[in-house]
Amino acid sequence: MSGLSARSLPGLPEVTAGTDLAELIAGALDAERPARQLQDGQIVAIAHKVVSKAEGAVVDLRDVEPTARAHELAEQTSTPAAPGAAGAAPKDPRAVQIVLDQSAEILRAERGVIVARTHHGFVCANAGVDASNSADPDTLIVLPRDPDASARQIRARLRELTGACVGVLITDSFGRAWRHGQCDIAIGCAGIAPLDDWRGRRDSVGLELRATWLAVADAIAALADLARAKDSREPVVIVEGLERFVSDQDGPGALALLRPLKEDLFR
Amino acid sequence: MSGLSARSLPGLPEVTAGTDLAELIAGALDAERPARQLQDGQIVAIAHKVVSKAEGAVVDLRDVEPTARAHELAEQTSTPAAPGAAGAAPKDPRAVQIVLDQSAEILRAERGVIVARTHHGFVCANAGVDASNSADPDTLIVLPRDPDASARQIRARLRELTGACVGVLITDSFGRAWRHGQCDIAIGCAGIAPLDDWRGRRDSVGLELRATWLAVADAIAALADLARAKDSREPVVIVEGLERFVSDQDGPGALALLRPLKEDLFR
Repeated sequence: MSGLSARSLPGLPEVTAGTDLAELIAGALDAERPARQLQDGQIVAIAHKVVSKAEGAVVDLRDVEPTARAHELAEQTSTPAAPGAAGAAPKDPRAVQIVLDQSAEILRAERGVIVARTHHGFVCANAGVDASNSADPDTLIVLPRDPDASARQIRARLRELTGACVGVLITDSFGRAWRHGQCDIAIGCAGIAPLDDWRGRRDSVGLELRATWLAVADAIAALADLARAKDSREPVVIVEGLERFVSDQDGPGALALLRPLKEDLFR
Repeated sequence: MSGLSARSLPGLPEVTAGTDLAELIAGALDAERPARQLQDGQIVAIAHKVVSKAEGAVVDLRDVEPTARAHELAEQTSTPAAPGAAGAAPKDPRAVQIVLDQSAEILRAERGVIVARTHHGFVCANAGVDASNSADPDTLIVLPRDPDASARQIRARLRELTGACVGVLITDSFGRAWRHGQCDIAIGCAGIAPLDDWRGRRDSVGLELRATWLAVADAIAALADLARAKDSREPVVIVEGLERFVSDQDGPGALALLRPLKEDLFR
């Protein structure tokens, strides 16, 4: 038998630019009743929004001058009226401009959705730009500039504060091309093997074996999101039982999960 | 605080056509030391291969006569030589014929990969056809004909045998359009809300909120796969702590997770 468990951390105070997230996390662990220590081999999964806020990765709409392209895209992708609703919801061209600024390429812009490839290489809705959970309605949250670096930095600081060698995962919710709903995936990680590689075993008929290269970091992100109630404002989840994927080295990070452009069959 | 845990079930005997899976699962629970009972609200996640085997959803290559189209696709998608390997791996046209038989549409066939939409509507590599874990090298495993019905049937039988009202999930490993590796997703479910809907809250700038329609069943599938070691041959995982997604009714099943063709931006 093998197994795992996960729990969300309550009691994290509001995060603002400059917040030392590792310190908040260590403090929240101390405040658990009974107080708990981080252990070697545990994984600390953090919803990216608090990382973005701590790093100041927010943009004020009032500072944005939308280009003609942003006006055009806002028009083109106004959200269609929901069944029973009054009418189409117009997009704010300034918000679309922020999406454009975060994007290396717009893959699709229709049916109310902008699917973009970010400068990091992530393919997702709105290039990761999001307003939810933002205290200020005029402020949008963007993805951290280098989420793997963020993970490495938080990991080092957690080690400094607690002595524990943990894995750190930074997560976001991504839609999927052919399936409804969103699942959390890893946009940054440190001290975690992002992929578990069993390839090389080929079956006898030449079909690609369908489960030999496991996206471990993405699966942990999905699991972490289930460990909190959605409205609980608990961005941090501690996962136990996956020591086999945690390493002393920081490892390649979540960028290793990106399919290179030249292998992309669905641009 | 909220939390969850998952453990894989050891000691499941070999599954063959006609095996009563629910009976095997109940027996494996009894054999745990200490013996454990299924509890209301737990989720039983089952790797689809044992469901397919129990239902006889296997095809013998020796019974297959490949069409011209299968020969052509086999040629076109021969796996490119891996770095350091001797040469391209030819595909067996009979295996490709089985993929075609399982497919409603071939989306892509290049770079060694066939991406297909199955008759159920799942978009995945090889239309879900897989040889791994098959005891007989001449036999390929295909997806269950109606995985939601399989989940409902196993759930009803588990209730009959144990009295517990659990959720049942049938999982498979799917690749992703823009990310390396595979994650387990739900191809069938019963007694589980496949999606957790928080939509309707729209942010002030008209951007689609990016995490308001959670693919719960897929996240549970991903989590379950982490609870077993990959080579452990433990197809069954018991998940606790997600009672909020388990219902007395069977619910809409995993088909509710499929994005309809008319909303597909990436065919």
